[in-house]
Amino acid sequence: MPSIAYQGEPGAFSEAAAQQLGASVDLLPCRAFEDVFAAVNAGTVEYGVLPIENSIGGSIHRNFDLLVQHDLPIVAEVEVPVVHHLLALPGVTLAGVRRIYSHPQALAQCDGFLRRLGGVEITASYDTAGSAKMIAEDGLRDAAAIASARAGELFGLTPIQSSIQDFEHNVTRFLVIGRQPLQTTPADKTSIVFTLPNEPGALFKALSVFALRGIDLTKLESRPVPGRRWEYLFYVDLAASPTETPCARALAHLGEFAPMLRVLGSYTSCKPTAAEPRPAAASFEKTA
Amino acid sequence: MPSIAYQGEPGAFSEAAAQQLGASVDLLPCRAFEDVFAAVNAGTVEYGVLPIENSIGGSIHRNFDLLVQHDLPIVAEVEVPVVHHLLALPGVTLAGVRRIYSHPQALAQCDGFLRRLGGVEITASYDTAGSAKMIAEDGLRDAAAIASARAGELFGLTPIQSSIQDFEHNVTRFLVIGRQPLQTTPADKTSIVFTLPNEPGALFKALSVFALRGIDLTKLESRPVPGRRWEYLFYVDLAASPTETPCARALAHLGEFAPMLRVLGSYTSCKPTAAEPRPAAASFEKTA
Repeated sequence: MPSIAYQGEPGAFSEAAAQQLGASVDLLPCRAFEDVFAAVNAGTVEYGVLPIENSIGGSIHRNFDLLVQHDLPIVAEVEVPVVHHLLALPGVTLAGVRRIYSHPQALAQCDGFLRRLGGVEITASYDTAGSAKMIAEDGLRDAAAIASARAGELFGLTPIQSSIQDFEHNVTRFLVIGRQPLQTTPADKTSIVFTLPNEPGALFKALSVFALRGIDLTKLESRPVPGRRWEYLFYVDLAASPTETPCARALAHLGEFAPMLRVLGSYTSCKPTAAEPRPAAASFEKTA
Repeated sequence: MPSIAYQGEPGAFSEAAAQQLGASVDLLPCRAFEDVFAAVNAGTVEYGVLPIENSIGGSIHRNFDLLVQHDLPIVAEVEVPVVHHLLALPGVTLAGVRRIYSHPQALAQCDGFLRRLGGVEITASYDTAGSAKMIAEDGLRDAAAIASARAGELFGLTPIQSSIQDFEHNVTRFLVIGRQPLQTTPADKTSIVFTLPNEPGALFKALSVFALRGIDLTKLESRPVPGRRWEYLFYVDLAASPTETPCARALAHLGEFAPMLRVLGSYTSCKPTAAEPRPAAASFEKTA
């Protein structure tokens, strides 16, 4: 039974991601993303689950930074559909809600709904499910939380309104980190991070090592190098495995001029479910 | 006397950015970034000041999204050094602080300091200066805020500890939006946004229109298109003006295959001060 750490309280979307990894997983809720890395590092758990990108809100940058700071390979990815509910103690109606608590990403994803409310104080907290827990534990009858249906069930809150996110197609992509392989399927996706020299056309040259070998990019992200003003780290997801010759050669080629290059992991990409086909445009750097 | 809206309470770093635009500016503090756009749109103020990127925390994505949703040109950019202080009511010592309030970005920038404290509850709020104001107004003697020195002065709080950010070189870049030009200096920087077709090598091709004409990129950012799973908008800053022929031709070239392309504004880039020279690596796509 694999043991898995995740950030948040039970009922958090990260818990749903961890549960997708198997029916019989042993789960460890953590307060912060850092604690998930620490738990895997210390061997307290085998794997950690981390949100990396939401289809509405974009990247969860803290986890990009933590992936570089640690030496724990990415071994899988998981996608979780995000459906938000406005949860309150039984008997509380929308008219009685004066304060709404949730994670800033969840608040942003329900922005249209919150604007239409008016006259309600919106408070950012560290966790969607944690907000639901606080309302239940403190018996706050003038407050509501934005969280998952499961968080409502776990903490005895009732949905005042359901599916309140602004966009129906709201998906969060999670990465799984760990020292042992998790999948038996062949890897078809690779995450790398690199820096570039201050040279003419550096980024264009970096992308050319993949484009000219017909390797797709599915993600490109730049992050400031802490403490070095406007210098960047580049994160790239490749639709390829370094065990394949073109990908191995492209990485060696990039390594010829990138001052830093690290493979963060190689794993099987999320496959679309039959109910929600992945759009053809999922890859923005599809090379024939 | 130009009138300028900014997000936050007086003492916020956005106020410092607005003040850099002139000694005699008429300032309007706003609750949210959306309110800054609304004030400029309605003509209540001439300009709005918006944080767009921090050298430690990265991009402020909400403002990229709002720039696309509105039709207000970028007319200038301003850089503000960020120095954080732990502020509390006079007489309160570090040992007496049980709770610390600040904006999530500020909390992240002081992560090392906060970790060394221990036993203190950290609460995210919408504004650095607003946290200082709340502590002063509510007379909270067991709490402290992370905010600017000016916020401390304005709300009568004393610095318990100064310059507590993890990295010394912490700078936030702000954009100024407005319908009228603000600068008389020639534009040398252009911000654009575009989408790309689902075609082989689309991003590589997009970058080639600039690289092959010797135009530097100083920033590349991708953001999900809301409601369209894993499709992206690309934001690019060019070290060029569309009034110059190569840049105008590059934009026309990009327009040949980009389904959407918009120039968000053209303006004079921030010049380094003598005290803190801008590193050579400020441009990651410098093309000779």
